Amino acid sequence: MSENLLERTVFVVSDSTGITAETFSNSVLSQFEQIHFEVIRIPFIDSPDKAEAAAERINRCATEQNERPLVFSTLVNPASADKIRAANCTFLDLFGTFVRHIEAALGTKSNHSVGRSHMGGLSKQYHARIEAINFSLAHDDGQFIHGLEQADVILVGVSRCGKTPTSLYLAMQYAVKAANFPLIPEDFQRGSLPKALAPYRKKLFGLSIQPERLAEVRNERRPNSEYASLKQCRFEVAEAERLMRMKNIPCVSTTTKSIEEISTKVLEEVGLNRRIY
Amino acid sequence: MSENLLERTVFVVSDSTGITAETFSNSVLSQFEQIHFEVIRIPFIDSPDKAEAAAERINRCATEQNERPLVFSTLVNPASADKIRAANCTFLDLFGTFVRHIEAALGTKSNHSVGRSHMGGLSKQYHARIEAINFSLAHDDGQFIHGLEQADVILVGVSRCGKTPTSLYLAMQYAVKAANFPLIPEDFQRGSLPKALAPYRKKLFGLSIQPERLAEVRNERRPNSEYASLKQCRFEVAEAERLMRMKNIPCVSTTTKSIEEISTKVLEEVGLNRRIY
Repeated sequence: MSENLLERTVFVVSDSTGITAETFSNSVLSQFEQIHFEVIRIPFIDSPDKAEAAAERINRCATEQNERPLVFSTLVNPASADKIRAANCTFLDLFGTFVRHIEAALGTKSNHSVGRSHMGGLSKQYHARIEAINFSLAHDDGQFIHGLEQADVILVGVSRCGKTPTSLYLAMQYAVKAANFPLIPEDFQRGSLPKALAPYRKKLFGLSIQPERLAEVRNERRPNSEYASLKQCRFEVAEAERLMRMKNIPCVSTTTKSIEEISTKVLEEVGLNRRIY
Repeated sequence: MSENLLERTVFVVSDSTGITAETFSNSVLSQFEQIHFEVIRIPFIDSPDKAEAAAERINRCATEQNERPLVFSTLVNPASADKIRAANCTFLDLFGTFVRHIEAALGTKSNHSVGRSHMGGLSKQYHARIEAINFSLAHDDGQFIHGLEQADVILVGVSRCGKTPTSLYLAMQYAVKAANFPLIPEDFQRGSLPKALAPYRKKLFGLSIQPERLAEVRNERRPNSEYASLKQCRFEVAEAERLMRMKNIPCVSTTTKSIEEISTKVLEEVGLNRRIY
C-alpha cells in the first residue's frame, strides 16, 4: 500500500485521443471526493505493440506505488485491450463492456475500427464545427452585425456575464452558430434592445448573473472601476432582466453554472437537443 | 420493426448536462457506420419524478417506432436509474456498471451525489478554464504580444492552418493558456521567426498543413485571391516548415486531423498529459 491512501493514479488508454475515456473517468471519479487522482492519458494506442508498451508503463507504476492503478480504456481492438487487461491494474473496459450489448440490440456487428470516434478532420460535421467557431469569433460581443441572420442563437446580456465562453463552447461542441451581443447602459436608457437585434427576436437568449458575482468578475479585469462597482452591476443586471422580461426573451442565470451547463440550457430552450449522425 | 432498419433512436439521459454520456455514445455508435442515429439528449434528470417522465417519453418513442430505443445513462441516483431501466429500452448504465467495480478497487464508497461531474461554475479549476479562454482570445493571431510569458504553449504556422480553433480547444477543455502567432511572408523573407517570439522558443509548437488543403480553406474565405493560390500556399508551407526545422520546433500536420487530435498531440509534446484532480 502507498503511504498516502488518498492519492491514486489513473490511466486513460485509447486508440485515438482518449477524450471520451477521460471525460468518462472525470465524471465517475468526481464521485470519490475524498481521493485525489492523478490522471495520465496514453493516447493513440493503435497497435498491439503500442498496447504492450502501455501495459509495461502501467506495470511499472503499479510496482513503484505498490498499488494497482485504475485504467479506463476505450481501446476498440480486442487484442490491444487484452494486453492492457493482463497488466497489474483494475481494467475498466468502456468499449468492450457495452459494444456486445449494443450489437445484440441493433442486430448488427460493429466495425471494430480504430480511432473513428471524432470523425477525421475532413468530414462534413467537422467542417460545420470549424465554420461555427469562425462565425462565433466574428460575431463576438456584437462586433459584426453583418451575417447575424445566419446565427442559430444570439446570446444577450451585460458585459462579463459569460456570453463569450458560452458562444465558443456551443460552436466548438455542437456546431451551433452562436453570436453574442452586449446589453449596455445606452440600451437601458433607451429602454429597448439594440436596434441590430430587432429582426432576430426569436433567436435571442438571455444570460444573467448575480450582481455580487458580476462585480467580482469585473473587478478582476478593471479593479476599483465604476464599471466593476456593485452599484453599477446591480443597476445593469436589474435593467437587463427587465428588458428581457419585457421582450419575452428566455433567460438563464450563469452565476453558479459551468459553460457546459449554460450551453445545455440554451440547447434545450432553442430546441437543438436532437442530433443526427 | 420500423420501416427503415437503418435508423435508430438513441436517448442520452443524465442528472447533469449529459455531455459525458453523449461523448461516450457518439464514440461507441461511430462503430456502427451502417446505421443512422438520432440522438435525443434529456439532461438535468435530478429527481425520480423527472426520471419517471423521461421513462414515459422513452416508452412513447418505443411504441411509435415499434422498436426499443438505446438509452445511454449517467444517472447517479439508483432510484432514478431504475425508473429508466424499467422502460421499454436497451438500458446502458454507464455509471452503475463501473462504479461498484471502482468502489471495490478504491476500498471506499462513492458520494452518489448528483450533477457533480463538471464541478460547479465557481470551482478553482473552472476559473482556470475561463482565464485560459480569455488569454487565448486575447493572444489570437499574434494580436497581443504583452503577456506571452504567461502562455503554456504558443502555436505557430501559416494563416488558416488551424491555430485558432486549436488554441481555443486547448483553453476550453484543458485550461491551457494557448497563444497563437502567424508565420507570414515577411518572416520567410527575413528567414527568421517573428522577433516577439524569440524569448519563448521552448513554448513554440508548429502546425503545418498540405498546400492543397490550405488552398481549399483559403479559397473559402478569399476566393481566387493570390493568398489562396496553390502557388502561394506551397511557398508559405515550405518556408514555414523550413523555419520550424531550422529552429527545432516540434510540428504536426493538421491536414486530416480534428482539433481534438491536434490538441492531444500538442499536450503530449509539451508534457501536459497529466492532470491532477
